[in-house]
Amino acid sequence: MSVYEKLRALEITLPEVAPPAAAFVLSVRTGNLLFVSGHIAKKDGTPWTGKLGASLTTAQGKEAARSIAIDLMATMHAATGDLNKIARIVKLLVLVNSTLEFTEQQLVANGASELLGQIFGDSGLHARSAFGVAQIPLGCCVEIELIAELTPA
Amino acid sequence: MSVYEKLRALEITLPEVAPPAAAFVLSVRTGNLLFVSGHIAKKDGTPWTGKLGASLTTAQGKEAARSIAIDLMATMHAATGDLNKIARIVKLLVLVNSTLEFTEQQLVANGASELLGQIFGDSGLHARSAFGVAQIPLGCCVEIELIAELTPA
Amino acid sequence: MSVYEKLRALEITLPEVAPPAAAFVLSVRTGNLLFVSGHIAKKDGTPWTGKLGASLTTAQGKEAARSIAIDLMATMHAATGDLNKIARIVKLLVLVNSTLEFTEQQLVANGASELLGQIFGDSGLHARSAFGVAQIPLGCCVEIELIAELTPA
Repeated sequence: MSVYEKLRALEITLPEVAPPAAAFVLSVRTGNLLFVSGHIAKKDGTPWTGKLGASLTTAQGKEAARSIAIDLMATMHAATGDLNKIARIVKLLVLVNSTLEFTEQQLVANGASELLGQIFGDSGLHARSAFGVAQIPLGCCVEIELIAELTPA
Repeated sequence: MSVYEKLRALEITLPEVAPPAAAFVLSVRTGNLLFVSGHIAKKDGTPWTGKLGASLTTAQGKEAARSIAIDLMATMHAATGDLNKIARIVKLLVLVNSTLEFTEQQLVANGASELLGQIFGDSGLHARSAFGVAQIPLGCCVEIELIAELTPA
Repeated sequence: MSVYEKLRALEITLPEVAPPAAAFVLSVRTGNLLFVSGHIAKKDGTPWTGKLGASLTTAQGKEAARSIAIDLMATMHAATGDLNKIARIVKLLVLVNSTLEFTEQQLVANGASELLGQIFGDSGLHARSAFGVAQIPLGCCVEIELIAELTPA
């Protein structure tokens, strides 16, 4: 199955991508690497706020991370025109809005990692760092940055 | 206008670059990528301390981020000999010393992003992640790491 | 001396590498770059927990960072088959589990930076970012992510 068939099989529709209001862009290609900006969690198009260890459970955080993975795929689709040009998901940086006591960032991050594995197969197996941060823009619960390798242009 | 003419037009003088005291270097080139170490905010050459959401306003944090962008350009000038060899600012990682409640890291980060856009034009348009951290070395208010693409050697 | 002779001279034995239980891998090679996942501090094979500024001293944190550098070398050895294929340690991202007041993350990070310098010499001189995070998976005190340049395949 192609990447898009797998997305359909999981009933995932990639959202429209809106360019950021600020002075940066959603991704930059350099050589065969695509550096994708940190994407913050959204629910129904608005910031998905909350802090793990306080207002949100680990399961909710994992769901938020999964939703960000969908947004990251939407951005990569917009950047490349074809997600099948993704040769490898190289690395995720997963930032979890955490209290000073919450220690399950790795379980939250799995929400994104597992979906990317389902969609991209072996090409979706990535390196990863996950940790708890003091806050995230707009109070979002999770933010994820991604590096992908593209097939040569 | 060249990069240096734009710096002059904005009355920006790049500071002298002092190598770090510790066991690392300010930047490493690999292939066409230049990885620049996290630079901490300084004011008059000393650490620009404080925490967003407590002792500093968003506007002050934005000013600190702008000043770090100047220091990053000084480091890239020292590393390359000529800032016009910067083909693209690829990505910023913007760490904001934040309380557990402060949620305007993106506005702080704009201080660096906007200046890089002014100086480098389209080549200054970068991917970016910004988030709040618990602390920064020496108590500095902002720290920024950068990846740039250089013209082939 | 080769990298392995230097490890022996320092009486360092690289541990066995266990693949992560989760949906990611310990490292990904893309081109000549090796992106190594964030490694969390361990002591006697179990999570090395604690927070700098509270339950751990800077010296203890530095020791934990040094131990992670050993684990990172074990992962790079497993990934490459030969640590002498590391052309350059490019960058470290050093995350220190910190109170909102602890400001010596750079001294903690030196535990990793200094060991990599001892083992790899000039090739071990890397760019670096170090900062304090709210928490780390499993409550570990330090987490380090690494990028290395490999000799061409």
